[in-house]
Amino acid sequence: MEAIKDNQFFQNLSVLFKPRSVAVIGASSNPDKLGYHVMKSLTQGNFQGRIFPVNPGSEEIMGFPAFSSLEACPDSIDLAVIVLPAKMVLDILYQCHHSLVKGVVLITAGFKEIDDPLGAEQQEKLAEYANSVSLPVIGPNTFGMVNLNWDLNASFTPEFSSLKKGRVTLVSQSGGISHLLAFTALNNIYRLGKVVGLGNRLNVDFAQMIDYLVEDPETEVIALYIEGLDRPRELMDKAKRVWGEKPIIALKTGRADSGNQSSMSHTGSMAGSDVIYQGAFRQSGIYRVNTTEEFLDLSQALSVCTLPKGHKVAVLSGQAGPSMAVCDICYDHGLEIVSFTQKTRETIHGYLPPLALRENPVDMGPAWYNSSAVRGIVRAVLEDEKVDAVIILMMFASANRVTIPELSPVLFEWQQKKPVLSCFVAPHGIWDQAIEAMVEQKALVNIPTPERVGKAMAHLWHYSQMINR
Amino acid sequence: MEAIKDNQFFQNLSVLFKPRSVAVIGASSNPDKLGYHVMKSLTQGNFQGRIFPVNPGSEEIMGFPAFSSLEACPDSIDLAVIVLPAKMVLDILYQCHHSLVKGVVLITAGFKEIDDPLGAEQQEKLAEYANSVSLPVIGPNTFGMVNLNWDLNASFTPEFSSLKKGRVTLVSQSGGISHLLAFTALNNIYRLGKVVGLGNRLNVDFAQMIDYLVEDPETEVIALYIEGLDRPRELMDKAKRVWGEKPIIALKTGRADSGNQSSMSHTGSMAGSDVIYQGAFRQSGIYRVNTTEEFLDLSQALSVCTLPKGHKVAVLSGQAGPSMAVCDICYDHGLEIVSFTQKTRETIHGYLPPLALRENPVDMGPAWYNSSAVRGIVRAVLEDEKVDAVIILMMFASANRVTIPELSPVLFEWQQKKPVLSCFVAPHGIWDQAIEAMVEQKALVNIPTPERVGKAMAHLWHYSQMINR
Repeated sequence: MEAIKDNQFFQNLSVLFKPRSVAVIGASSNPDKLGYHVMKSLTQGNFQGRIFPVNPGSEEIMGFPAFSSLEACPDSIDLAVIVLPAKMVLDILYQCHHSLVKGVVLITAGFKEIDDPLGAEQQEKLAEYANSVSLPVIGPNTFGMVNLNWDLNASFTPEFSSLKKGRVTLVSQSGGISHLLAFTALNNIYRLGKVVGLGNRLNVDFAQMIDYLVEDPETEVIALYIEGLDRPRELMDKAKRVWGEKPIIALKTGRADSGNQSSMSHTGSMAGSDVIYQGAFRQSGIYRVNTTEEFLDLSQALSVCTLPKGHKVAVLSGQAGPSMAVCDICYDHGLEIVSFTQKTRETIHGYLPPLALRENPVDMGPAWYNSSAVRGIVRAVLEDEKVDAVIILMMFASANRVTIPELSPVLFEWQQKKPVLSCFVAPHGIWDQAIEAMVEQKALVNIPTPERVGKAMAHLWHYSQMINR
Repeated sequence: MEAIKDNQFFQNLSVLFKPRSVAVIGASSNPDKLGYHVMKSLTQGNFQGRIFPVNPGSEEIMGFPAFSSLEACPDSIDLAVIVLPAKMVLDILYQCHHSLVKGVVLITAGFKEIDDPLGAEQQEKLAEYANSVSLPVIGPNTFGMVNLNWDLNASFTPEFSSLKKGRVTLVSQSGGISHLLAFTALNNIYRLGKVVGLGNRLNVDFAQMIDYLVEDPETEVIALYIEGLDRPRELMDKAKRVWGEKPIIALKTGRADSGNQSSMSHTGSMAGSDVIYQGAFRQSGIYRVNTTEEFLDLSQALSVCTLPKGHKVAVLSGQAGPSMAVCDICYDHGLEIVSFTQKTRETIHGYLPPLALRENPVDMGPAWYNSSAVRGIVRAVLEDEKVDAVIILMMFASANRVTIPELSPVLFEWQQKKPVLSCFVAPHGIWDQAIEAMVEQKALVNIPTPERVGKAMAHLWHYSQMINR
């Protein structure tokens, strides 16, 4: 299949992600149908544009008047979300084009991913037609997509609308991984901008998404979940051309053979040799991570933090144990626990009682009761010219309850100059609001364990080395 | 210091963990004092025994009549929790002995951990006396300890009382790591039995805890967080003597030199060479993991699952992507994604639509709408004699909402025969109750990411290999 797309195609793709009107073709009032959940996502997602359920058998769906066809809708439609059976889709695409629809989210499955060559054939026909009329189609075989900054939830998962708005766009070949990452983000006070399920990639593949997202002002980090590529060179070329403009990170599964068999089935492409991918990613400036946790943590860190200028890290901790876990990870991943300048040491000395340790990693335990001392230590360490990056850890205990919210101003000031990552852990409900406020101000990325926060800092450093080499 | 303890010492240690009465020496009504938080922990933790605040300056603390001294308490005291300044502690220990106190939790800091030889000297004096009268002392320089199965929260952190009761005892050299693990357990529907902060280990060290916990019917898994040992051989000998009786797992930090400096300070012992520890652990049947996440995940898995008889794993997933992530981890850690028997394949065939993939890993996506089909597939795979262990993954989507609770009976039945680990992920509030119920029945250990669930299964297998070699 020809992959070159014209200007019209990319203009349409922009409208697809920011439509003023959406039709749901196959909308339903029956909770057993995907068309029901898509309607729920759209209507409960606070979407500001118009919504047109299309279903010839209904007069009204979820309080919206239903229409018998696209043509019957009383307004122009920017985005059509299709949840009808596979055999009806080609005809619907014709209708989309004739009704001047700009983009399609094709949730319907039963194409290239099924164990029947007819599926692939059918998909090829759809692609030929969609390309011939420059109609971008997300899918088929996708959960849909979400553009949180447009209050648009064009997916069958209404819960995506609860995500906090951010600047990370997640482009994924797997609906399952998208759901995993989105829910983990939700439960972890992480922020996302768009979540896009590419599904079988009819004519919107990773390469097209990079073209679009590099120009998208609402995307600051591009995070790709990849199982296998049909045209790896296309993606690598695109990525190389925008080297360093925006961070592009990738999580790729399929190292194990048995996993490949699964990928072959569910998105219709072979996972391919992992070693080849590894080299190709590096050469094209795509930074690879190996777990869903690292993928999420790094995406958040890149969307908030400036890149470290060196590998010298300070670890400030409310308790010594967690700082040791961080130091181990830093050590494993080539970060140095730097010695402070004499000036910093003296400043810390002034804040901590005489017998406390005041070298890096700093145990701030003795200053728990004194938020201004904690703030003073954090500021002194951030000001130390030998320090490239700072990790702060604090496990909740009754005595340090107020410490976290009071760090906000100093973190807000310094986050733009040196990367700061934190690991603040408490039972739900104690620090959530304070952390959320700091995350909203881009003062903080809070990562749930010492090991993960150490790894995220190492990835920031290694990313900056890769991109600046 | 002499470490041999007599029978009286261990009898007293049993009472320490299951006291009928507790005195808080240094109890306070002032929220800026640790004595306030300890009182709050005890009184809000549903403790069934008697509570005696001791403070000569108060008549009543939190609704309890206060006493001027231990001697003034109108009942015998099993456990004394001490939060008075360091210089007063020796005298208090004399009083404890004379009042027939059986055990002490010594929260007070300012001993071996401080940068002053007087601290270590003072601690040595306390130890000599406590040993001479067979008085076990947890601490000094500890947050305290919690015995959830006794509704006893003898710590300065009232939030520990919200933990779900389980059979994992966590013995930790770091208060920070204890808090991290406990809060992570709390937020993750994990269960703990005891959380013990050893602090500076006056006369209750890892070795004494193993002696006690191996006999403790409420402990099924012993989880040790270690930074450094004063008498490594003592621990290793104890562990070796109880080889395989109960799983003993360890998380040890201090691989990095800078971390060692911190450990030297805060618990008064050198971390020592990591390689030596690694070998010693293996030889004494202590299974080591490297991150706080693995430590928690494996402790839960060991407390619920039977050990796998081999390394052949089945992966059942509601979506293909997450199963690929699991297969990669299995592959990395020496687990095999097994081929099913013909019979299993046929059974799965009956449950899935014609074009779905029915080999391992099984994509159960097409059966979402049909909980009995999902249950049938899970059962068939558990019955397959080629399968040693099963991992089930399901990311929430509207259509699979009821699937999880309906798996409960088959998991409950099979968990005792083959290990089953799951990764069910949803926004908070959707599956929590169902998962909690299954966890309570010991039908399930639910682990938050595909990579972690894969690793936990690999650890179960490697643990069983180590212990049965």
